[in-house]
Amino acid sequence: MRNPQLNSQGKLQHLLTTEGLPRDIILAILDAAAPFAEVAEREVKKLPLLRGKSIFNLFFENSTRTRTTFEIAAKRLSADVINLNINTSSAAKGETLLDTIDNLSAMQADMFVVRHASSGAPYLIAGHLAATGREHIHVVNAGDGRHAHPTQGLLDMYTIRHYKRDFTALTVAIVGDVLHSRVARSQIHALATLGVAEIRVIAPRTLLPTDVERLGVHVFHNIDEGLQGVDVVMMLRLQNERMQGALLPSPQEYFKSYGLTPERLARAKPDAIVMHPGPMNRGVEIDSAVADGSHAVILPQVTFGIAVRMAVMSMLAGGS
Amino acid sequence: MRNPQLNSQGKLQHLLTTEGLPRDIILAILDAAAPFAEVAEREVKKLPLLRGKSIFNLFFENSTRTRTTFEIAAKRLSADVINLNINTSSAAKGETLLDTIDNLSAMQADMFVVRHASSGAPYLIAGHLAATGREHIHVVNAGDGRHAHPTQGLLDMYTIRHYKRDFTALTVAIVGDVLHSRVARSQIHALATLGVAEIRVIAPRTLLPTDVERLGVHVFHNIDEGLQGVDVVMMLRLQNERMQGALLPSPQEYFKSYGLTPERLARAKPDAIVMHPGPMNRGVEIDSAVADGSHAVILPQVTFGIAVRMAVMSMLAGGS
Amino acid sequence: MRNPQLNSQGKLQHLLTTEGLPRDIILAILDAAAPFAEVAEREVKKLPLLRGKSIFNLFFENSTRTRTTFEIAAKRLSADVINLNINTSSAAKGETLLDTIDNLSAMQADMFVVRHASSGAPYLIAGHLAATGREHIHVVNAGDGRHAHPTQGLLDMYTIRHYKRDFTALTVAIVGDVLHSRVARSQIHALATLGVAEIRVIAPRTLLPTDVERLGVHVFHNIDEGLQGVDVVMMLRLQNERMQGALLPSPQEYFKSYGLTPERLARAKPDAIVMHPGPMNRGVEIDSAVADGSHAVILPQVTFGIAVRMAVMSMLAGGS
Repeated sequence: MRNPQLNSQGKLQHLLTTEGLPRDIILAILDAAAPFAEVAEREVKKLPLLRGKSIFNLFFENSTRTRTTFEIAAKRLSADVINLNINTSSAAKGETLLDTIDNLSAMQADMFVVRHASSGAPYLIAGHLAATGREHIHVVNAGDGRHAHPTQGLLDMYTIRHYKRDFTALTVAIVGDVLHSRVARSQIHALATLGVAEIRVIAPRTLLPTDVERLGVHVFHNIDEGLQGVDVVMMLRLQNERMQGALLPSPQEYFKSYGLTPERLARAKPDAIVMHPGPMNRGVEIDSAVADGSHAVILPQVTFGIAVRMAVMSMLAGGS
Repeated sequence: MRNPQLNSQGKLQHLLTTEGLPRDIILAILDAAAPFAEVAEREVKKLPLLRGKSIFNLFFENSTRTRTTFEIAAKRLSADVINLNINTSSAAKGETLLDTIDNLSAMQADMFVVRHASSGAPYLIAGHLAATGREHIHVVNAGDGRHAHPTQGLLDMYTIRHYKRDFTALTVAIVGDVLHSRVARSQIHALATLGVAEIRVIAPRTLLPTDVERLGVHVFHNIDEGLQGVDVVMMLRLQNERMQGALLPSPQEYFKSYGLTPERLARAKPDAIVMHPGPMNRGVEIDSAVADGSHAVILPQVTFGIAVRMAVMSMLAGGS
Repeated sequence: MRNPQLNSQGKLQHLLTTEGLPRDIILAILDAAAPFAEVAEREVKKLPLLRGKSIFNLFFENSTRTRTTFEIAAKRLSADVINLNINTSSAAKGETLLDTIDNLSAMQADMFVVRHASSGAPYLIAGHLAATGREHIHVVNAGDGRHAHPTQGLLDMYTIRHYKRDFTALTVAIVGDVLHSRVARSQIHALATLGVAEIRVIAPRTLLPTDVERLGVHVFHNIDEGLQGVDVVMMLRLQNERMQGALLPSPQEYFKSYGLTPERLARAKPDAIVMHPGPMNRGVEIDSAVADGSHAVILPQVTFGIAVRMAVMSMLAGGS
């Protein structure tokens, strides 16, 4: 089956990736998120949509920030949230991933939010749930290896739509370590599905997958050329651990070649927006003058991210 | 006083052990758990029985799985749950166990769910609460040293009753590391109180307490003999740390002598059930063909475990 | 601006320190806490005052005990509470403190409860929120470096008022490591504002700030002299890490010179009360006979602490 995240009626069953996610479902999620973005402004930010549901944050890889966004989203929907940092628990006792899932399923889980260092782990879980007749349990991929981070990709689409309305006329540049980035993959697939005019990736050769053009992107190794006339600049986080290897000379060198400065940003359209999934390395991939400048929509991304996660969770488990 | 877990009216005050727990109280817990098992199937799994109660999960020994079961049970009863991993906190600052208890009691705790590496720690706490006039605070033993794990024992009884109805005609075999197992002790006491026809323990000499017959069990060192004609097989987890000592040669050797395979299980009654407290070591104490086979009721145990914990918590703190 | 914790109408905007906190605001907090102390006695301890509010416990320094008190207080007010141990998360990824704050603010936080090893960190956060137009988010200092621990100071005032009613006639002695104690600073400022007759500090020269007299206290190096005729004895915790340095010879020596024994306490007024912020080092700064004796009000301090934190939180974020 091509798309394990849809059920037999074509409705969203799991959110595993933006790859192959139908355009109407992406738009339905963005539409559903809009009222949740308004809820967050109210005095009482709570809705009873997931009352009595049990949501497990299964973090096999530590990420306080991402876990927090899902925890807030679930609590604002009145769900019961259980945080599990699995690397420090059963996994250490030698239990297999699927035995852990079976166990938590037997505790009447309604949803697993899964972060895992291995690409494909959420698929494995979703497939296992289907194989064992537990289709009532939903899986949300909160980042798996280098593969996908779909809620990040979707909140980025929400942000672009919020500021630019129409996707089809846009030129979008993704800048940085595309090779190791699940965020970049989720962005590229969503942008392509939503029909942006042009997707560019800007990075040194060592930080690009060898077959990156097959994703339908234009490759630039020179950031000044790549930013020329773009509407949207999506920065990627440069993970410190990449520096130790042979991939990059030093943070300073990287900033000199690929850091987003006001001068470079001036090559983009005058009303271009600058995005970043966070946490930022100021002075490495992005200059503080840009991060805190008028083009940056980095904090609105975070706000929209809660709304998008509330939308996904309520679409999956919100009942009939 | 013989039984510190009952109050002066003979009602359950704490759950510390299944040893000496009266038959009518065990049965009352199992009866109370039945409707909670049904609640878990509903759209909204929440009941207001412990609304406004403060339940502290005091885990002096790390156990994400057990903590999770109590956390879910408490949240489904609408209690406020506070998780404390004490090994990383005040204990490190040199505070005594009883000072920690006094402090949390002063925060108007209603219940302590206690996991501790030392046998007897929950008794010490219960005794201290009585001595200081705080009988309104309840203690649930979530596993103390090698001593007891009563909610595990009770959920096992619930499971047996669910599948076998009548205890009195049953032959039950407990297989594995009885010596170090608080689970085995809690099972044996509960089974004896409920009047099963025969309790067998199957283990190598090095994994049995020297005086194990005094518990009223029949000892088998040969698993093929021990499983002959049994109704219930209760496997124990073989803790990896036992392997390092002189107690056992290797996981492979153990599996060869005591691992539960389909061939061995064939010696039990045709409708025998296989139980395991989890997490399983597949290929060490249990073959995957058995763990995933038709005799296994290991996942129902987990489901019933939530219901039994809800029953215990609401009987203790659910008010008049 | 002198007092960043008040808003333009002179109402409490943040709780950062007891220094310069107006007398009427201190008294308003103590008055507001009284009914919450009664709530804790009820069958259902929950109030809906902060329903739908998102409170972040930002602990850059680990403290299970303090975090627990704020977590309980927030949950009893029906807030959603998110615990973040920041030392193990984004901070490790190189994100700045203010980027973390910006991010959590963008998640529609209503309150930050901040514990930080650096003096002034909560001020930095409050100033940043003001500078970025997010005055609707409140900051509570849960202990910053050696600087302040205002909720501890306020719960101590609540305790003194509970037992002694009138502050103006009291002689209060603070005993121990004043030099490193944020608790002592918060106590001294609050006591001075509330107009106690005399504040004494009792400590060896090495554990006192050089300019301590400027705080309006009388210094005693001899505990027997210092305790003569006092109404209130406020013990400080002696942190073990001080022992390793040159500041103190050994726990035994310290106890011999400054430990509070029944004999020494006999020099205080017959109805003197003994306080301690916990966790106690029995046999170091305090003798068990005193800690568990009739003069000690150490556990009531804990109970009142929950009520005072509920009062502060509801005054800050409880809405109009």
